Amino acid sequence: MNHPAQAAALRKPLPAELLAALEAIFEDRLSTSQAMREHHGRDESSYDPMLPDAVVFAQTTEEVAQAVKLCASHEVPVIPYGTGTSLEGHILALSGGVTIDLSQMNQVLAIHAEDQTVTVQAGVTRKQLNQEIRDTGLFFPIDPGADASLGGMAATRASGTNAVRYGTMRENTLALTVVTSDGRIIKTGTRAKKSSAGYDLTRIFVGSEGTLGIITEVTVRIYPQPEAVSAAVCSFPSTADAVNAVIRTIQMGVPIARVEFLDENSVRSINAHDKLGLPEKPLLLFEFHGSEHGVAEQAQIVQEIAAEFSAIGFEWATRPEDRSRLWTARHNAYFAMLQMRPGGRAISTDCCVPISRLAECILDTKADCEKNAMIYSIIGHVGDGNFHVLMMVDPHDPGDIAKAEAVNARMVARAISMDGTCTGEHGVGLHKMDFLVQEHGEEAIESMRILKHAFDPKNILNPGKIIRW
Amino acid sequence: MNHPAQAAALRKPLPAELLAALEAIFEDRLSTSQAMREHHGRDESSYDPMLPDAVVFAQTTEEVAQAVKLCASHEVPVIPYGTGTSLEGHILALSGGVTIDLSQMNQVLAIHAEDQTVTVQAGVTRKQLNQEIRDTGLFFPIDPGADASLGGMAATRASGTNAVRYGTMRENTLALTVVTSDGRIIKTGTRAKKSSAGYDLTRIFVGSEGTLGIITEVTVRIYPQPEAVSAAVCSFPSTADAVNAVIRTIQMGVPIARVEFLDENSVRSINAHDKLGLPEKPLLLFEFHGSEHGVAEQAQIVQEIAAEFSAIGFEWATRPEDRSRLWTARHNAYFAMLQMRPGGRAISTDCCVPISRLAECILDTKADCEKNAMIYSIIGHVGDGNFHVLMMVDPHDPGDIAKAEAVNARMVARAISMDGTCTGEHGVGLHKMDFLVQEHGEEAIESMRILKHAFDPKNILNPGKIIRW
Repeated sequence: MNHPAQAAALRKPLPAELLAALEAIFEDRLSTSQAMREHHGRDESSYDPMLPDAVVFAQTTEEVAQAVKLCASHEVPVIPYGTGTSLEGHILALSGGVTIDLSQMNQVLAIHAEDQTVTVQAGVTRKQLNQEIRDTGLFFPIDPGADASLGGMAATRASGTNAVRYGTMRENTLALTVVTSDGRIIKTGTRAKKSSAGYDLTRIFVGSEGTLGIITEVTVRIYPQPEAVSAAVCSFPSTADAVNAVIRTIQMGVPIARVEFLDENSVRSINAHDKLGLPEKPLLLFEFHGSEHGVAEQAQIVQEIAAEFSAIGFEWATRPEDRSRLWTARHNAYFAMLQMRPGGRAISTDCCVPISRLAECILDTKADCEKNAMIYSIIGHVGDGNFHVLMMVDPHDPGDIAKAEAVNARMVARAISMDGTCTGEHGVGLHKMDFLVQEHGEEAIESMRILKHAFDPKNILNPGKIIRW
Repeated sequence: MNHPAQAAALRKPLPAELLAALEAIFEDRLSTSQAMREHHGRDESSYDPMLPDAVVFAQTTEEVAQAVKLCASHEVPVIPYGTGTSLEGHILALSGGVTIDLSQMNQVLAIHAEDQTVTVQAGVTRKQLNQEIRDTGLFFPIDPGADASLGGMAATRASGTNAVRYGTMRENTLALTVVTSDGRIIKTGTRAKKSSAGYDLTRIFVGSEGTLGIITEVTVRIYPQPEAVSAAVCSFPSTADAVNAVIRTIQMGVPIARVEFLDENSVRSINAHDKLGLPEKPLLLFEFHGSEHGVAEQAQIVQEIAAEFSAIGFEWATRPEDRSRLWTARHNAYFAMLQMRPGGRAISTDCCVPISRLAECILDTKADCEKNAMIYSIIGHVGDGNFHVLMMVDPHDPGDIAKAEAVNARMVARAISMDGTCTGEHGVGLHKMDFLVQEHGEEAIESMRILKHAFDPKNILNPGKIIRW
């Protein structure tokens, strides 16, 4: 997929003076090699790479601040980089500049088990965090699939499979350390669970995709590992039945920990990829967290609801290894789909609607995919009204790409018309900038622009993302 | 209590041209009478009234926008007014101007029971809302005590007794309609449960106390009425025992719906006010929401924890009328204390700390009150680490007031030193502006100032609150 044509024209070479100053700070942690720039100029989106001019590996907040100050004085773009797993072109260096890789900022700074909070450097990944807090009996629930960094997850307002029970990065981020566009270091929030103390700077930066400041430290809530966990899987004769079972479950207030929808195309692909024998029909995967009693109670209600919607083969997975196999398969759904069209490229998108509109939104989107003969799958964190469409396209066929983008545009318009949002968890990046306007309207976008201009008056922080200057 | 001395000096009379233009729009819904201005120039804080020059009663978002545009063109302050129940001087007309009373914007605009969302005009109060959605089987849980308006609750990031289970206005506000300082009307957010679509405008306005925009419509989450509810009350030999029982309950992850602490002074005052015979010792009030089984399970765990901390007279209140009597008494705690010093005035304050530090923070604050011979009580939404100190002072004795303010300042410093916040739910208003700097530091305050200057370049929106220009 191509970038806005003007991007290349905007590029200026990096000033030698800036490069020398960065080298004095970062020494061998600065690279201008083609390989390093290529690695940092792409994400998991379908965009072609767009390379920064240099990459620095920061180890402290102060180093990030120094780098930003230097770049600001030369009006050179700065792009923060965590694990490169963003999905909408968030980290592409549209106008070149310096990418600040935060992966070496990987220290867990403070574990406050007694308060169920933890403070980490931005480069700590969610799996690393869970490994490091394992002995406390607590866990960090937010799971976007990829082993993303906490800084990146905060910057994209990430969520994932557990959000229906535990919330997203919006609800779970208590405090941040942020480097501003003029190189100040600010602390937002505290470890108190709630506060009415002034403007909510924390949530200004959560979801700002590196365009308002660079997140260098994150304090998040962690949770007691549930006393009991059980999982269940069942198939449905139709998509409508599966999704309506979820809608009923949510409307009844069952506190499920996870509920994932996989359409028959997803099931077919993961059967092939993971050598499973799941019925190739729409499927729901449930997980329940709570006390022994609580889990049993939830599970019984859900099984009854599923039966009302003609569920087939409701099966329990109470052993950890069975649960793990199912969830691994679910997490492999993306890679499994890639195999369905060798040489193809995936266009992945998401939207989120109020729960009562979910069946209609998925069914209409599915019909549109079928009508356009897409190679596609639909999976979703359906308890939140959030679903993904993955379309496999021929990267050398502009017509194929345009067809997929048209399906995406219609899906977004549909979600917005249902009081929903153009992205539930992927974020805006490059890919959804126009949809953002469609969703919020020009007047609200103007307020976003005022914010961006105030917080980044030189437009150096990840420029060209979220909103147009 | 006196206001900053410069306030009076800043006052200019309202331009006749502006008054005429407002009168053309609002007709008999504009008032400049002394009585009306006095009513709108005070809140529940201990500040002396500070009157606006005029009051208009808006009925639509468009009227609010027209009023703001007119005031902006004359650089005249605009102060939104809901029910006047703020506690830190939020709505006082420090530099005069026009108060926009939103109480006539009291329509429930849309009830989406199937999505558990409701959209209301800003003047709808929480009790009115619960009355209007009663038949849906759903309820709005946030309960700051006063029958506040939803607009005011959003503007102060309100919470209260149920927040430990259901969250605060921060978590429960999905979307807003806001009039900006230049009179634009913007819509923030959607009815989708989660979104990664751009900057979080909703949470920029939630908690901004009318200083960044005027909230005219609010969409919030509502919840299924729990299948079972039970409440319990028990006393403890000491404050430390009571608070440590709460800390243990929270650390064990018991999903209690409410847990309120009342110190022996509070109990004594509500015994007198409500003619109850509660033991005059530190007391906890619990409420449990869930399934029959779930509630029984939670209650059993809590009863065991309470016993470990030497609870006295653990009593169940399963009948609605008993629960109602206890909670009414709790909600009367403020008025009950007023009776403890006839002719006195209450200075009310709050802070919030990480749960593990709560006992220490309350005990040290209590010791400080005792040492200074204050007439005081401490009550708290202790499940969140949030507590209030109510001090009765002689309004004619500057020394008495200064002593109370010094206790308050030390409590805030203590909370901040424990990674806590200077206000858990009251907000900043006039009273906590200096503490805000102490909590966040100059660099973060600078980012708040950048935001204020960008969103309100003429400083007309509730000027002089939250941060200094």
